Order: sequence, then structure tokens, then C-alpha cells
Amino acid sequence: MVSNFFDAHLQVLEKAVDACHTREFWTPYPEIPSRKIYGESAAADGEAAFKARLGRASRLKLPGSGGTVGTEFSPYGFPLDIKYPKPDIENVIAASKAAGRTWKRAPVRDRAGVCLEALNRLNRMSFEIGFATMHTTGQAFVMAFQAGGPHAQDRGLEALAIAYQQMTRTSATAIWEKPQGKHDPIRMEKHYYVAPRGIGLVIGCATFPTWNSYPAIFADLATGNTVIVKPHPNGILPLAITVEVFQAVLKEAGFDPNTIMLAADEADHPIAKDLAMRPEITLIDFTGSSEFGVWLEDNARHARVYTEKAGTNCIVIDSTDDFKGLMRNLAFSLSLYSGQMCTTPQNIFVPRGGIETDEGHKSFDEVAAALGGAIEKLLSDPARATDILGAITNPASIERLTNMAATGDVVLASKRFNHPAFAEARCHTPLLLKSEAAERDQFAQECFGPISFVIAAADTVQSLDLVRGLVREKGAIILGIYSTDQNVLKNAEDVALDVGVALSVNLTGGIFVNQAAAFSDFHVTGANPAGNACFTDAAFVADRFRTVQVRAHV
Amino acid sequence: MVSNFFDAHLQVLEKAVDACHTREFWTPYPEIPSRKIYGESAAADGEAAFKARLGRASRLKLPGSGGTVGTEFSPYGFPLDIKYPKPDIENVIAASKAAGRTWKRAPVRDRAGVCLEALNRLNRMSFEIGFATMHTTGQAFVMAFQAGGPHAQDRGLEALAIAYQQMTRTSATAIWEKPQGKHDPIRMEKHYYVAPRGIGLVIGCATFPTWNSYPAIFADLATGNTVIVKPHPNGILPLAITVEVFQAVLKEAGFDPNTIMLAADEADHPIAKDLAMRPEITLIDFTGSSEFGVWLEDNARHARVYTEKAGTNCIVIDSTDDFKGLMRNLAFSLSLYSGQMCTTPQNIFVPRGGIETDEGHKSFDEVAAALGGAIEKLLSDPARATDILGAITNPASIERLTNMAATGDVVLASKRFNHPAFAEARCHTPLLLKSEAAERDQFAQECFGPISFVIAAADTVQSLDLVRGLVREKGAIILGIYSTDQNVLKNAEDVALDVGVALSVNLTGGIFVNQAAAFSDFHVTGANPAGNACFTDAAFVADRFRTVQVRAHV
Repeated sequence: MVSNFFDAHLQVLEKAVDACHTREFWTPYPEIPSRKIYGESAAADGEAAFKARLGRASRLKLPGSGGTVGTEFSPYGFPLDIKYPKPDIENVIAASKAAGRTWKRAPVRDRAGVCLEALNRLNRMSFEIGFATMHTTGQAFVMAFQAGGPHAQDRGLEALAIAYQQMTRTSATAIWEKPQGKHDPIRMEKHYYVAPRGIGLVIGCATFPTWNSYPAIFADLATGNTVIVKPHPNGILPLAITVEVFQAVLKEAGFDPNTIMLAADEADHPIAKDLAMRPEITLIDFTGSSEFGVWLEDNARHARVYTEKAGTNCIVIDSTDDFKGLMRNLAFSLSLYSGQMCTTPQNIFVPRGGIETDEGHKSFDEVAAALGGAIEKLLSDPARATDILGAITNPASIERLTNMAATGDVVLASKRFNHPAFAEARCHTPLLLKSEAAERDQFAQECFGPISFVIAAADTVQSLDLVRGLVREKGAIILGIYSTDQNVLKNAEDVALDVGVALSVNLTGGIFVNQAAAFSDFHVTGANPAGNACFTDAAFVADRFRTVQVRAHV
Repeated sequence: MVSNFFDAHLQVLEKAVDACHTREFWTPYPEIPSRKIYGESAAADGEAAFKARLGRASRLKLPGSGGTVGTEFSPYGFPLDIKYPKPDIENVIAASKAAGRTWKRAPVRDRAGVCLEALNRLNRMSFEIGFATMHTTGQAFVMAFQAGGPHAQDRGLEALAIAYQQMTRTSATAIWEKPQGKHDPIRMEKHYYVAPRGIGLVIGCATFPTWNSYPAIFADLATGNTVIVKPHPNGILPLAITVEVFQAVLKEAGFDPNTIMLAADEADHPIAKDLAMRPEITLIDFTGSSEFGVWLEDNARHARVYTEKAGTNCIVIDSTDDFKGLMRNLAFSLSLYSGQMCTTPQNIFVPRGGIETDEGHKSFDEVAAALGGAIEKLLSDPARATDILGAITNPASIERLTNMAATGDVVLASKRFNHPAFAEARCHTPLLLKSEAAERDQFAQECFGPISFVIAAADTVQSLDLVRGLVREKGAIILGIYSTDQNVLKNAEDVALDVGVALSVNLTGGIFVNQAAAFSDFHVTGANPAGNACFTDAAFVADRFRTVQVRAHV
């Protein structure tokens, strides 16, 4: 059974390995939520499956669990009212350890087969996962479908492919024959085994429960580690569905379903620290606040800790030959999912004296006003605004919007926005503020949510200097540059390489600085404080296992 | 010039990459110190070159250095009296940073070319390096030639090959073309750059200055990091020669020679901590005591720290069909380089009731006595004894020999041994002691030097249990098992996989448990307290660089 899974999906795995090398466009999981692709009734079935979960107890079982947890509330204005088994940490760890005894000794191909089959099933459930993602994160449906479904599956497959490649980089066996001059050679038979670290704790985030967790889940499982998923208290369902799927596949393949478990909690009684500090936890993957990320890096010293934290993403505008395209592109980047992506630009540096464009010189104020206008225009159609903005995940972000509007120099005010289908949805348009290079305190912190600054700098040299300092100190996942001057582009590239941040150049079309495509774009470099891990480079997987060899004379 | 180096040696690099995968026997650097291979006058020239260095100032220059250091003393009984520039840490770091500006932006092939050319020149200097190694470490000449020369070069090439493979795993450029249904596809051009961490500090050890440092030196340089080598105060010369060679190659290739620098010190004024705690140091590789290794892991949190520390290597004897071969093999393992290898077995577990052999049943005492006898026989010929034992690196080991003989249950006493050529050489034969499973305190610490225990256990089950606990708690690099019972071998394999230690099975011939061949044997797993790093798995190199991408519309 197990080896059927591997053989059935081997071609996908091989193509994924190849794509990770060529970095060309490729995906086995179509991103369009189309009936033609996913089936006539897929959308309706997925929504029905999602709705059938509301107000019920999760099907998941947890060994030694007593009681339930679950306080998920849709940013569209209603409680999910789903109850998950309340984890008893001692029992969860014991069960994970027990499951590991078989899992860690399973052949690489059997573990890869389980992961591939799970991905295949998750893909077929993309509509259900899409609705679960929408009503936990606040993403609009199409984005929730894509980011929670196929794009997350891509990231999972990518991590699996890199792990598979790294594990098979060393031959599993070798005959080692050393010449001895006139004498017979010495012959030895050697076996090389993948030895996993142990138990991986994967701590999910509120905004991208699956997309940000799949790389770790698949990398851990592929390399023989068991997994305990600790989702964000408001982002449980997408990961609960994921764990359900994995457990079913594991069972069919003859493995202990507890190889992966869900340990959910509530905001009032968080368990992440208690789990992380257990010595049995040897791997921790975390996406979320810099505060807790740094705490984990500093305190969970018994484990290998991989973090994706916060930063201050920057755009430097120097000049352009497509002013309208620039504004359209940037307006979309700032508005998409109400600026709640870890890749949303926050700080937009513009020379105080303005910029040269295809529409002639634009003063600093004209640039700021044009960006505000582009956002307003983009969101002027309510249906489109609904599709782009989604809803605010965390009520604290709305408070931040109000506070910053009150104290800042407002270019574009944020407005409450009525969602056509959900009257109580937390929908707000972006807030755009003006600032000065000298007022670094205003923009040097991450302001999570749809809040951005247009910042007046002396010139582009100062803009890039500010970026260099900010990224070094606070971290950043993306950097965008707009310039028609090759020297400026070269300087921006130098900054990007020096501080280790991905650079997007002159994006004016249908690609946005906050987007990262699996198999081609690396997400987070690991080289600045925004995170120590990268989706998905070799360093993300190589340290999750060791090679133990056994040798004997032939 | 640079690209000539790469092209000239590309075939060697490609073969090395291939060998790292197949794990079959391969080496481009012959281990036999033969005139036919290295040239008629190679031995004499090498010795002359070594002698010409004695009593002189090193040719190395260090920016901003004032004064000299150097207290190396040959374990064969004379001071080397070589003076090296005394490092000023501030200036050394500034020079390393300055050199990095060019080095980190050099193409992968240019950096690999420099490394390959350096290896080629180092190989031709293997006799000189052999003498330098002999008179710093105390290794006998043939071993010093091999371990300090070709075997170290193998390890350097291996690390370079793995680094090269990991860096080229991602294509350097890609055209990413995403279909847009009926519309034109979105096309983007992407560039992927290797972004090194910064400055690598490589802290050498007293016993294998080159062999244990080359993996880090080559991995760091290949991935674009600059290197500061801090040798052991008594193991400077082999690394000084290495740095000389690198600096010459760098200069010829148009790079800053300070891309690699030697920062030597004296035991009375150690500088390793001061260097390690500089925030500019982003990578640290250390081979040496567990105490300092753990200190680095705990304190140098700003850097990625790779350690190779100490442990208690174990042998479990259950039964054998070649008693004489077993004893011969083990006697050699215990005697080679006077037990000063990090892979020398220390604890030999034998059932209290004795073992079954091809020579009939042997009681515990008979096994212990046979091992003592095999060591005596092996070392009965003074010429052979000289070649095998070498000299004691650290006088503290001789003190330990005396103290342990006084308090322990002696099977074979250690004897002072007269070296035919060096009257003052610190030569001593191994000490073999008896112990009991219950007297864990006696053997649970690393006893560095030619000191081993034959330990009586209830049975092999207890032996393996003891090993499991010891390796988990204290660490180990190697484990040996002798048994004719397939179930016992399976159990030993389970222990090895569980605690992450390399296992050698029934070694009775010309391969010894303490030997590890590059391209085939992994040295240290990284999975137990004997070290967190492995020569050379992907994890050893993958985290030394990051990938920074730049993308733009085509």
C-alpha cells in the first residue's frame, strides 16, 4: 500500500525536484478555483463540508485528552464554534514518541509516499480548505482558496522535494573497495541511514495557517520526524483538516496516525511555550511575532528553531517610465488582504524633491497623492474591493489603524467598508501616511495591518541607506525598487545582497512584490532579523536529520 | 587566471561530487609517501623546507600586527621556535571584512577555483606539511603525512564538493513564465545569488590541525565567507603553511590575500573567546574539548557554531569467529597515535561470563589478558612501535596515565618508550584497565590519551544499554560491535540509530574503527553530544550561505 503511494506520485516528486533546480514556473496544483479543474460540484461540496463542521466537535482524536478547546471567530463576523480535543502535553509527547519508533525507521520512499498522497488529497479538498482559511484568516475566498490550498500545497511539495533530494544525495549503500597494491583490495559494505532529530513542533500563524506551516510539516515528516501542530488559536481549522487527511493516509499505509497530531489551544491558555520547552521537542518551526520568535530562539536551546518573524518591508521609488503602472501595482500590493501579508510593503521611500516619470516630474506630494488615488480607484468597485481586501484578522489591527490615523500625517484615510454578504465583517480600506526620513521612530517598527508610509528622503542614496539600516536592524522579507537608472538598480542590488533581502525590480504589471511562487521564489532569506529560515532552501531541511552509517567487511 | 584554476581542476571537483554521492572509494591525493608519486626528492625537500622554518619568523603578514607569538614545542622533544605575527583582533576583523567585499561577490566558480588550486599546491607540499604535523601533534611521520596531508586534503575537497553542489543546486538564473489563459504569459527574469554569512572563525585542535580544520576552511571559503584561522597554540605550523598557500593563490587570482588569515596565540594568552564573541564573526567551527565547545554553543549566539567535541567511544564484544583478528585489530586501534584520536575506543564492554569464539569459550579475564597481550605483541618491535605510537601531544596526558594506573585495576601497564631518533620524545605505550559496569564513574568521562577500559557487563544486553546511556549523555564518535549473532548485530544497529553514532561491525582486518575515509565515511554524526557537526553532510555547508534573489519583468 505504502509503496503504491510513492509510485503513484513519483513523477510529481521528480518534476518538483527538477523545478526546485530550474526555478521555472511549475505547479501540479492549479490555482484557479474552477469547476472545470476541480469538478462541477467542488465549490458547493467544499462549502457544504465547511459548513457541516461549524458548531460541532472535530473528528480528531488526541490520546489522553480531556475536555475541548476552540474559540475560532470568523473575521467575517461569526463564531465557528468548533471544538477540538484539549491536549494533555505529557500524553501528546508520549504518543508522538511512540509513533516515531516506526516512522523514523520507515524507508525514505514510504515516508515520501505518505506525504505525496496527503498532498493529493488535500488538493482535492482545496475548496473546503479555502472556506476554512477564509473564515479563520479573513482572506477573501479566492485568495483563501489559493493561499490556503494549491499555493500551500506547492510549498509543502517543494519542502518535500528538497528533503527528498537531500536524503537521497547520499547513496543508501556502498561497496567501498580500497586498492592495496599487489594485495587484494579491502572491501567494505556500508549502509547509510537517515536518522531524524525526533519530534517537530510546528507553530502556526493566524494569517496563513497552511501556507506557512506546510513547509515545516512536510520537511519534518519526510525526514522521519513526527510532528505536533500547534495552530494559532484563531487558525485551527485549516490545520485540523490537514492533520485529519494525514492521519487517514498514515493509517492506510500502516503507520501510527499519531505520527502527526494537532495540539490546539485558546488565546487565554496558550500552550506553545510549554510544548516548546519540553526536551523531547527537537525541532521547532514558528511563524508569527518577532517577540515570540526571538524568545524561542533564545530559550528553546535544546531544539533547532526555525523562525519566520516580522520586519519592515520597503519600497524605494527613484524614477519610472510607467508611473500609472507603478501606482496600480503598488496600490494592489498595499490593499491585498488588507496589508496583512508578511510581505506587504510598509515603508515607501521617495526623494523629497520628487521623481522623474513618463508623465514628467512628480513632486513628493504628487507621488503620495497618486498612490492614495490609485488605492481609492482600485477599491472603488465594492465587489472588487471585497475580493481584494478580505477582512481584518485581529481586532488589534483596527485599533492600530485608528491610533495611527489620529497621530500621523494622513494621505489616505482608512474607511470602514460594508461587506455585501457579511454585515459584521471587519473590513477596512488601507491607511496611507506621510513621514520624513528623520522621523525614523514612526516607521521603524512593523505596523501590522493596512498601514503604510510614504517617506520623504533627501535622495535615493539616502533611501537606500535607510533601507540598509532598517533591514539590518528590524528585518524585511521583500524590497522593491523603481528606477530607470541602471546605476541605481545596481546600488539597490548591492543593498539587497548586503542585508540579505529579496529584491523586485520595477514591478508595474501583474506580479506584485508581496507574491512568492513556490519552486521559483525563495520566501524569507534567513539572512536578516525577519527570520532565520527560508522556504525552501537546503538549510531548511538539511539539519532536520543526520546520517548514521553502519559498515562491515564484505 | 581565476577561471583557469577552475577549469584546470573541474574534473577533480566533478569526481568529488560524484564520490560524495556513491560513497565508493576515491581520492585524488595518494596517501602513500612514495617518491614514485611525489617525486624523487620530495621527502628530502619536504624535510628541508620544514627545517628551514625552525627558529625563524613566519612569512605570514597580519595587518596592524605588533609583536610576535609562538611557543610550539615538538612532542619529540624540541622547541620549533617559529614566530608568527601577533594578531590585533580589531585590525584582523577589519581586514577580513574588507577582503569579504570582493570575495562574497565573486562567482562560485572563481571561489571554487581558488580552493581547488590551493588543494593542488597543498598536496604537492604534503611532505613539508607531514613534518610540520609530526612535530606539532606528535604523530609518527607516515601518519602525519597521511592525516596532515592527503587525508586532510580529501576532507577539504569533500567539503568543497558538497558546498559546490549545494550552491549550484539552485540555477543561477531563470526565466519564469506563468501562463495567463488566453492572454500572454507573465514573464520574469530571476537571478539567484549566494549570499555568505560573513566571517568564519576556524578554531583548530592540537592533534589534527589540518584534518579537522580543512572542512570548515573550504566550506567557508567556497560559500563566500572570509576565514580567520585560530590554531591551537601547539598546532600552528601546519595551518600557517595552509594559509600561506591560500594567500599566494588568492593573490594570483586577483583577490585580497586577507580573505584567509592566521590569528595565532599562546596558551598563556588565549584569544579564541575574544575572537568568537566579536559580532562580526558569523560562523565558528571548533574542534577540541567539550568544555570550550559547549561554551561556544552557549555563548557565541550571534554566530552559527559547528563543534566537534569529545566523547566516550565504545566497543561491545559479544562473540567472534576470529578471536585473533579481533584482538589484533583492537590492539592497533588502541595504540595508533597513542590513543589520541577523537575516534580511539575507550570503553570495551565484555560479558562477565566471557564470550564464545573460534578458539572456544574465553572468560572475561582471558579476553582482557588477550587484549593486553595483543597490544604488547603489536608494540614488541621498536621500529613498528615508533611508527604506530608517535608521541604524546600534551604532557597532561602522561600525568593522567600515571594517576589512572595508580588507582585502577591494571591489565597492561603503560611504559616509557625510547624513540630511536628523538631521545626526549614523549613516547608511552597504552594503559589498559579493568572495570565493572557498576563502576560507571570510572569510565563515563573521556580519559584522553592511551587509556582504555575492559568493562565487565552482565551480558551484551547490558553492554548495549550502557552504550546507549553513555552516548546519549557523553557523546561518542564511533561504536564497534563484535558478534556472530545476527540478532545482536541488529540490536547494536538499533542502538547506533537511536543515539546517532556510526557503527563498525566485526572489524578484524585492515580497517580500524577509528579510521574514517573522506567521500565515504561520515565523521561525527552531529546527533549526540560529541559534536553538532558532521564531516561532511549537507547541514555542514547549507547554513553557511543564503540565497538572495532579484527579479524583474523581462
